[in-house]
Amino acid sequence: MADRETNRIEAFSDGVFAIAITLLVLDLKVPRDLLAGQQLADVLLAQWPAYLAFLTSFATILIMWVNHHRMFSLIGRSDDRLMFHNGLLLLGITVVPFPTSLVAEYLGHDGQQAAALIFNGTYVYLAICFNLLWRTAAVRDRLLRHDADRAAVAAIFHAFRFGPAGYLAAAALSFVSVTASVVLNLALAIYYALPSRRSPGHV
Amino acid sequence: MADRETNRIEAFSDGVFAIAITLLVLDLKVPRDLLAGQQLADVLLAQWPAYLAFLTSFATILIMWVNHHRMFSLIGRSDDRLMFHNGLLLLGITVVPFPTSLVAEYLGHDGQQAAALIFNGTYVYLAICFNLLWRTAAVRDRLLRHDADRAAVAAIFHAFRFGPAGYLAAAALSFVSVTASVVLNLALAIYYALPSRRSPGHV
Amino acid sequence: MADRETNRIEAFSDGVFAIAITLLVLDLKVPRDLLAGQQLADVLLAQWPAYLAFLTSFATILIMWVNHHRMFSLIGRSDDRLMFHNGLLLLGITVVPFPTSLVAEYLGHDGQQAAALIFNGTYVYLAICFNLLWRTAAVRDRLLRHDADRAAVAAIFHAFRFGPAGYLAAAALSFVSVTASVVLNLALAIYYALPSRRSPGHV
Amino acid sequence: MADRETNRIEAFSDGVFAIAITLLVLDLKVPRDLLAGQQLADVLLAQWPAYLAFLTSFATILIMWVNHHRMFSLIGRSDDRLMFHNGLLLLGITVVPFPTSLVAEYLGHDGQQAAALIFNGTYVYLAICFNLLWRTAAVRDRLLRHDADRAAVAAIFHAFRFGPAGYLAAAALSFVSVTASVVLNLALAIYYALPSRRSPGHV
Repeated sequence: MADRETNRIEAFSDGVFAIAITLLVLDLKVPRDLLAGQQLADVLLAQWPAYLAFLTSFATILIMWVNHHRMFSLIGRSDDRLMFHNGLLLLGITVVPFPTSLVAEYLGHDGQQAAALIFNGTYVYLAICFNLLWRTAAVRDRLLRHDADRAAVAAIFHAFRFGPAGYLAAAALSFVSVTASVVLNLALAIYYALPSRRSPGHV
Repeated sequence: MADRETNRIEAFSDGVFAIAITLLVLDLKVPRDLLAGQQLADVLLAQWPAYLAFLTSFATILIMWVNHHRMFSLIGRSDDRLMFHNGLLLLGITVVPFPTSLVAEYLGHDGQQAAALIFNGTYVYLAICFNLLWRTAAVRDRLLRHDADRAAVAAIFHAFRFGPAGYLAAAALSFVSVTASVVLNLALAIYYALPSRRSPGHV
Repeated sequence: MADRETNRIEAFSDGVFAIAITLLVLDLKVPRDLLAGQQLADVLLAQWPAYLAFLTSFATILIMWVNHHRMFSLIGRSDDRLMFHNGLLLLGITVVPFPTSLVAEYLGHDGQQAAALIFNGTYVYLAICFNLLWRTAAVRDRLLRHDADRAAVAAIFHAFRFGPAGYLAAAALSFVSVTASVVLNLALAIYYALPSRRSPGHV
Repeated sequence: MADRETNRIEAFSDGVFAIAITLLVLDLKVPRDLLAGQQLADVLLAQWPAYLAFLTSFATILIMWVNHHRMFSLIGRSDDRLMFHNGLLLLGITVVPFPTSLVAEYLGHDGQQAAALIFNGTYVYLAICFNLLWRTAAVRDRLLRHDADRAAVAAIFHAFRFGPAGYLAAAALSFVSVTASVVLNLALAIYYALPSRRSPGHV
């Protein structure tokens, strides 16, 4: 019964992650109505902010999906608080295509800083949600499986702790360089993708 | 066999819920073609009805997913009538992005009352469908599991009974204040999200 | 192993059905830029062809999903031919939002007959695919489960036989009345939704 | 545990494949604002590049899904490298609707060659990813099931080896004839769909 509960949450969350990551492609716009003398290749190259935003959001959602599963492989039971915090997390995941689209449209134009703040702010929100969700499950082993690997549990506490500060730094960096802040955001995703030395072999 | 039947319905329904909740983000529009002197942040703030409608529909679909699962955790068998009533419910769920988009576009403009009536009307329809579906399964224990928790069954009857009236009240409120009617709608979602005191620990 | 094979096909097909049915809502367009003196409610009512097309496609995809599952509950093994015919069927399912959108846009305007022909033609194609898929599985019991209910197998042969002709009739009717042809299409979906008297209690 | 790991990856990947294949329909555009004297049927026929691109991408994603499953039916364990290479593959799959849309818009117009290069280039990338993913799993049996069918393993090595070169040839052909390059791409998908003589009966 307990397992069935978390399976349900995982399956629904997986659906939301998979759809949100696939909807990102809708932000890659096909140029219409080329002006005389314009080359399609040039117009496509000029859309590089859209590709950077797409890649960053794709990498981040994928990593977050991996981390969501890392957590749930250790969680054995569910309660209303876990459901609620998971819902707050999914709210952030479904929103991601919107700030991604904002950055794709405004990077290099007026308004790029507001766009980058909202983009990085979304990830600050998500990093906070991950900590909330994990603490709901793992503080005093509230909802963990009885056989949960202690090293893996500790590794997640360790890894998540720096998330909000990292994304806050990316948001702050947008006051200096907007492009640099998006690149730092991408770097954070790649950092979280690297296998943790603390939990070798974990997926 | 019986379990396989309801698993199938649940899996398909989960897919529809997950997609409908994720498509809501398509109503958050990236402003294009800012006028001279316009700030992106100002234009985004002026889109607050879109955020309110998004949040309300997100919360409502999420809660409805939770309640759909609460029901199906007690249902052990399926028949054509259950399939049909579940189909009517899914029809309402897939429609939700449309009235959400209407409210996002018209709140604060001419036509906002028609938009709010359709928005709240969709939820009246959904609340009726939930009652239909639950009554099909639970009246005289037609399709319930033999070991279904009686307190949980009673709690669902109790909670659903007030749904249609609550959303009708939200629809009626739109004749006084359109924004208030959307906020009441959001409040109803949050009310249904709160753990029922009658079924502690249930998900 | 055999069961795992068909489970895989069913899960992927379920995903496609669930997404296609949920994407239909994107054809319900929020009116923008009302002219002076225009009422939102009037403009929405004038969109009735979009609602008719939406309802018809929703009902048809839902019924087709039910029938797809009815078939696969009797199929025990898979081979390349089954995969290929299932792929042809899914091609039709993913296409449905396009002719639905055509009818929603053109019903009542020039071009409505071409739209209705394509709309009904899509369902002729789907009805043929259902027959192909079922014959691949069931003729001489090629891929059926050993314990498949013979009455249920016969009922599917019987029900599918009339599908292509029914949808061809709907297509032909579009030369007389375009709206009537869409309504007949909807009636066919409802007919297929009714529980077969031959297989009572089946889902 | 090992199986649960790969099940998770498969389920998430299935979701992405199913959504990407269903989103392709969004590239089939309903013509709006016909000019006086224009026939809807003529305008729809003139959109043949959109249908060709849609069919090619649909067939390719479906075949890639089949091959993804063929691989994972032989893979028994997961590690970070497999996750990472699977992520690179999913990146390509989610991108497919974009080059498909490019070809649909530009085939037969200025810019068609850039569009075809990007279209075929996406499939070169995907073919490379398939080889990477398979080599990660299968070289020295790193992550294969202990009971993996050796003939099936060899057949996949054989089939994938020619993928990148085939799609490179399609890309090169676009310098001679853009339409021919898209048709060759479609032919490659059909080739991969044909049952391998080396692994009879496999799905």
